[in-house]
Order: sequence, then structure tokens, then C-alpha cells
Amino acid sequence: MAAMKAHVWVMPKRTVLDPQGQAIQHALASLGFAEVRDVRQGKFFVLELNGATREAAEKQVERMAREILANPVIEEFRYEIVE
Amino acid sequence: MAAMKAHVWVMPKRTVLDPQGQAIQHALASLGFAEVRDVRQGKFFVLELNGATREAAEKQVERMAREILANPVIEEFRYEIVE
Repeated sequence: MAAMKAHVWVMPKRTVLDPQGQAIQHALASLGFAEVRDVRQGKFFVLELNGATREAAEKQVERMAREILANPVIEEFRYEIVE
Repeated sequence: MAAMKAHVWVMPKRTVLDPQGQAIQHALASLGFAEVRDVRQGKFFVLELNGATREAAEKQVERMAREILANPVIEEFRYEIVE
């Protein structure tokens, strides 16, 4: 029974507007960071899993990301098993 | 004038409660993912910067993360310059 750690990134799809990212870009520009051309904001999850093989952990994390953590209509995700 | 891309991760400090992460963990458990022992949720930013050397980009991203993207009282950050 190994403990596994996983990282999941959830980002707005490139074809979807990211108003949060745009707001941050404008805020940065008005605060003097005019070099910033584009900002996209997403979510980052660190998951700790009990008692799984690496293969089982990958399947579970993929399912959790697809079914719960990301909204597949407007978001895309990627993940990695860390340890 | 090179274009640079940077990634910034902003996470709740380990000493700070993460109610959002806890809510997700409980939701996952109730949906059958009982193996998930802990969830922490943070933010992930992809920044595109105009016309900077790698060294200048690192300094700018560090300042943006410290002063704007993260709240240093309750959050910690890390970043990388990607290209």
C-alpha cells in the first residue's frame, strides 16, 4: 500500500475567453508591468492518494480530473503522478 | 526582444487551512474516490512577456508573484521561466 501524490492542472481551453486572466493582465499593466502580453489563470491541485499502484493512481486521477475537477466544456486538464 | 513564457504556482501555505481543498476531498470521497487522503487547491498562471532577457523575466515574474498574484500572508508561490 503505497501513498501516491498527484498534480492536476485545469486550464480554460484556448478557444474560451479567460476574463479572470484578462483582468489580471490589465491590473499588472496598470501597476507597471506593461511587458505582460497575456495571462491565463487556471487551477492547480495536489492530491494525496492512499494505497494504489502507479497505474491505478493514474486511472483514478484521470477520472477525477475529467469527471469532477475540470469542466470539459470549457476547461482542459493534465496531470502527473509525482511519487 | 524575445518573448518569454512563465508559469506561476500559488498555493495556500502548509500551515494555513485550505477549506476549498477540504470541500473537494469530501466531494470526491462521497463520489466514490475514498482513496484520496488530502487535496490542496491552488492557482496556476501562464504569463507571456514581451521583450525581456531570461534574467529580466525572472526578476519581473518574481515581483509580480510576490506583489500581486500571491498573498504572502497565507500563500506561497513558485515560478519557472519556460521559454
